[in-house]
Amino acid sequence: MTPADRRTAGQTPEHVTSVSNDTVKLLRSLDRKKAREESGLFLAEGARLIEEGLRHGWRPSVALAGLQALERPRTADLLGRLRTAGARTLTASEKVMSAVSRKDNPQTVIAAFHQRLSALTELPTQGPRRWLALFEVRDPGNLGTILRTGDAAGVDGVVLIGDTCDPFSMEAVRASMGSIFAMPVARAGTDEFLKWKAATGAQLTAASMRGRERHDQVRYPERTIVVLGNEQSGLPPTLESECDVLVRIPMSGAADSLNLASAASVMIYEVWRSTGYEGATP
Amino acid sequence: MTPADRRTAGQTPEHVTSVSNDTVKLLRSLDRKKAREESGLFLAEGARLIEEGLRHGWRPSVALAGLQALERPRTADLLGRLRTAGARTLTASEKVMSAVSRKDNPQTVIAAFHQRLSALTELPTQGPRRWLALFEVRDPGNLGTILRTGDAAGVDGVVLIGDTCDPFSMEAVRASMGSIFAMPVARAGTDEFLKWKAATGAQLTAASMRGRERHDQVRYPERTIVVLGNEQSGLPPTLESECDVLVRIPMSGAADSLNLASAASVMIYEVWRSTGYEGATP
Repeated sequence: MTPADRRTAGQTPEHVTSVSNDTVKLLRSLDRKKAREESGLFLAEGARLIEEGLRHGWRPSVALAGLQALERPRTADLLGRLRTAGARTLTASEKVMSAVSRKDNPQTVIAAFHQRLSALTELPTQGPRRWLALFEVRDPGNLGTILRTGDAAGVDGVVLIGDTCDPFSMEAVRASMGSIFAMPVARAGTDEFLKWKAATGAQLTAASMRGRERHDQVRYPERTIVVLGNEQSGLPPTLESECDVLVRIPMSGAADSLNLASAASVMIYEVWRSTGYEGATP
Repeated sequence: MTPADRRTAGQTPEHVTSVSNDTVKLLRSLDRKKAREESGLFLAEGARLIEEGLRHGWRPSVALAGLQALERPRTADLLGRLRTAGARTLTASEKVMSAVSRKDNPQTVIAAFHQRLSALTELPTQGPRRWLALFEVRDPGNLGTILRTGDAAGVDGVVLIGDTCDPFSMEAVRASMGSIFAMPVARAGTDEFLKWKAATGAQLTAASMRGRERHDQVRYPERTIVVLGNEQSGLPPTLESECDVLVRIPMSGAADSLNLASAASVMIYEVWRSTGYEGATP
């Protein structure tokens, strides 16, 4: 078998060493929102994240691995499964891996997956359900961290309202630690969100400086949506006035706010507590 | 009065336009840990953070303001107070402001303050007290966010154990949103920390995969230390075995962990709840 034959047989992947290689250029472009929108792809870095993507049935398009990674049976096996799932796999020099991940110590495997958002109507609505809604959240690190917390606490889905930042940015995907693959995410305008909210019969709640009841003195019903606003400006009055309950997270001294992802954690866990931590791993 | 006279009178600050100006070079160097250690200084960006620094009696060394900032009475007043507190004040071109803050849209005022850490023995120990201890936390964004949450929840002080990252890095200071100035922070080795813990008579608690009781089923005593470990490896066995109570934050499905700052929020608020939110703003 010549190297070319093995390549055809899918055993020896093509090796790229140039950052001007077309595939490398495509992958590198995915740190820009426009390129992600045009290609419909996004990057997941590292075996752990990519495993999550495959496990949840996401479709990989291209995968890059460092040459030495092939010598590890686990990585070689992962590349085989990526190919089975439809991905083109390539090996790449350290320089190319760094260029794609834009880090000095890149992960040993990087894959581009096809983006997938849920339609609002696809979010599961039967039975007890907890959802998050995020209005114009700007920081991708916050968004990713909130996806991770929601996933850990068994949240059923996340609705991104209005001009919320891209959940497929590298920073959001990294901060989500793989939860981007596990958590149904939908986008919606405010009106569309409110219509959906009404249809689900869920209680809409937010933490607010104007909240009367303390966040842990409310009994949250079995269908609850926690809505969180923008880092600087919070929720717009139009949305806050649609909340069924506004609660207040206690603050001490001169502090006037929590980091958005921290406030999200406190609310998500309080709502889950209210429902007896249903679905928690024993 | 000539411009030079006004300058002497402290009314027209020196204007710098070159990034090779010595003061600008010093300020720019403060994004490096070594330069922060050698100078004992760190950067706070923006009027809001700087106000916090002055309010808590921190000593400013140098302040830079954009020229247009002087036309705003509030900024001019802030610069006056920085001078009164001992700072040299300068105005700077947009280019210099960007170079110092390493951002395209820099804040209108940037100040270098003298670092200040508490000795462990200076942390207040009388009466009901809640402390945080962080073991080898690596991410300055997590550290800053945890300081912010602790401050919001009336935590009395934070102990950084071992090789925990620098609370005076730009990223930590930014994420703290000014709480770096409000919150007593001490550094300690593990042994020193454990001796101090014994002396305070506080209960040491941590969230752990090995925790038996759920985090909200424990009654935390009025003196409690919550200790949090490294992002990747958690707490070392030596420290975990010294905990009086290990608790378990519920998780759902395949999730195995929360972001460190999210776990900190859940624990900090749960301990505060256990003490009836003492000290909360009504």
